[in-house]
Order: sequence, then structure tokens, then C-alpha cells
Amino acid sequence: MRLLKDRILAEGKVLPGHILNVGSFLNQQVDIELYNEIGGEFLRRFSGVRVTRILTVEASGIGIACVTAQYFKVPVVFARKFRAKNVGDDLYSADVTSYTHGVDYTITVPRAYIRKEDSVLLIDDFLANGCALEGLVALVRAAGAELAGAGVVIEKGFQQGGRRLREQRIRIESLAVIDSMGENGGIVFRESGEKPH
Amino acid sequence: MRLLKDRILAEGKVLPGHILNVGSFLNQQVDIELYNEIGGEFLRRFSGVRVTRILTVEASGIGIACVTAQYFKVPVVFARKFRAKNVGDDLYSADVTSYTHGVDYTITVPRAYIRKEDSVLLIDDFLANGCALEGLVALVRAAGAELAGAGVVIEKGFQQGGRRLREQRIRIESLAVIDSMGENGGIVFRESGEKPH
Repeated sequence: MRLLKDRILAEGKVLPGHILNVGSFLNQQVDIELYNEIGGEFLRRFSGVRVTRILTVEASGIGIACVTAQYFKVPVVFARKFRAKNVGDDLYSADVTSYTHGVDYTITVPRAYIRKEDSVLLIDDFLANGCALEGLVALVRAAGAELAGAGVVIEKGFQQGGRRLREQRIRIESLAVIDSMGENGGIVFRESGEKPH
Repeated sequence: MRLLKDRILAEGKVLPGHILNVGSFLNQQVDIELYNEIGGEFLRRFSGVRVTRILTVEASGIGIACVTAQYFKVPVVFARKFRAKNVGDDLYSADVTSYTHGVDYTITVPRAYIRKEDSVLLIDDFLANGCALEGLVALVRAAGAELAGAGVVIEKGFQQGGRRLREQRIRIESLAVIDSMGENGGIVFRESGEKPH
């Protein structure tokens, strides 16, 4: 998605530890017109795919998931993050290791909010090592629902999450895939055959 | 807002400790059509008011703030929650006491994301003791920006937050104000002169 890549090049800040700060337009200060373009693009990429529900995990994916849901006209469900290991019987849960923050946490969703008849599209802002998305996949599997795929805004292609998930035959649509980035401003995107915007 | 009140009566669950669970449609599983109605209603209530930016705090307010921002056509900023007391110089911060969760935390927002020329509308899902909104007010004041007001989906009118904020001459627009609620299903809304839906 050319519009997104141009914005990453203009405003993204590469920080030590392979962190890309896109807070000025994507995940702390939000350009709502860009969110609309992202929602429309996910709808185009998953056209013809049955989607009855969108699932994301708090916090920064929530806004993108809600705007995307307006395009798909389906409900959104947020999985919640907990440090606690014990969760109630009325919840599906999955453990997640966060390399970025160096902690383990558990994500949960009430059983009533994912039904086995559902076809669930996962939405998140970032895909890096893939642990958060793998946790969401585990929640969908626990519910016995169908997994429609995952829509990701920015994939760090130099980390292993995207490859691992695609090896499980999960359809991942990433709007910008970064193949390499350095602190001196060099961000290289994977070729996608798009024309310049 | 009659549509919202009907939904609260139909699906809201009153739990011990004056907790109202509206997770099935508002803040864990989201009815995106209802979010659109909420966004449009906030625009009507703040018509004629200058709004250049919407500010909320993670996590459950993010979706409502983003959908509302589509109606106002302005950027959204999320304040982040931290347990730590020390924050960087490039952030505005405010301390918040959460009665619900029994903890203190600090909310922060990068200084670059609220400018003194801004007129900021606060958006949140709940107003109870008002501590979260007071924290957001403190961030706006620290930035030297104008406070356009606060749009709240559900106000617990039997707690003191709404009164305290209105005494500071802050304009609060709550789409449903609950005057009392009991575990046996009795939810009483404050009269607002609305016709039944």
C-alpha cells in the first residue's frame, strides 16, 4: 500500500532494538483518513472471503480493527491481556511471549464472543515475531471457528513471524513488509509490484 | 440516546461493586453500527464547538474515539497507561487513581501530539469517579491547549465524577446517565427528555 509506505518513510523513526516508531500517524496519534484507507484496503484484499467477525488484541490494534469492521460490516472482538495465569472457565485463553517487552502474558476472550460458526479475520498493527497473532490464532482454534486470515498493517519481514504463520497455511495480508531497516534512516520494503502513489 | 439505553437494558449485566458489564456490545465485543450512531451523536452534541483533536486513554476508549474521529474529521491521540512514576521529558503526564482496579497509574502522551493551538475533545466509554477524565484534562492543561469538552458513552450518575468535572465548568455530554442500578436488573436512567426509540 503505497500511501502507507510513503508515510512510513516520511515519519517512521527507527530506534535501537529493531523498533519502528510510527506513533505520529498509526498507533498513538492516528490519522483517521489513513485508517479509512487501511480498512478499505483490507476489504479489497479479503474480497470473496467469508468474514463474520474481526478479532484483535488490546491496545493499539483496537482502532484499526474498529475502522476495518465498518468496511466489513461485522462485529469486532478485543482479546484482553493479563499477567495472571489463571482465567475463568467462561474464557478462551492463550499464552503469549512478548520479545519487545520481555514479558509473558495471557490473552483471553469470553467464549460467548467467538462462536464455532464464525469465520474470524485477525487484525493487528504490527507483525514481527508473530507471538501476538499466534495467540489470537489459538483463541480461534479453541472456539472451533474458521480462520479467515490476518490483516497486518506493518510486517517486519526480517523477523520470523510472517514465515511461521504462512507455513501453517494462514493467509496473511500485510500492507507494508519491511525487509530491512537501520537507524540511519534506511527502510527497505519488500517488492509488491505496486506503482508509486 | 434511546438506542444505547435500550441496549444497556437488554444486555447490560450489573455485577457486585457497582460494575456494569456491557462487554457484549460496547467494550469487548463491539457492535460497529452502534459505534457509528455514537460517533454521529457526539458530532450533533458538539456541533458549533471547535474540535481539532480527540484524546482518549487506552484501551477500551480507543475504538469509540477512532469512530467518533471519522465524524469530526480530526486526528485521535491515545494517552498510554504506565505503572512507572518516571516518564521522559518529551511526554506530558498525569497520575490517576483507579477505584475500580484499586491501583494508581500514570498516563502519558508525547508533547508533540497536543499543541497549544489545539481544541481537544475527550472521549471515553465510562465516567464514574472521573479520575481517568481528570487525568486527560490535566494533559490538555499541561499542553496549554483548549478543552472543548468530554463525550462519554455511559455515566454512572450516582458516582461523583460527572458532578466534579461539571463544577470545573467542563462540558460533559453523556449519552446515557445511570442514576441507580441494582444486581436484580433495575437500571434507572436520568431523564433526558428523549422520546422512546
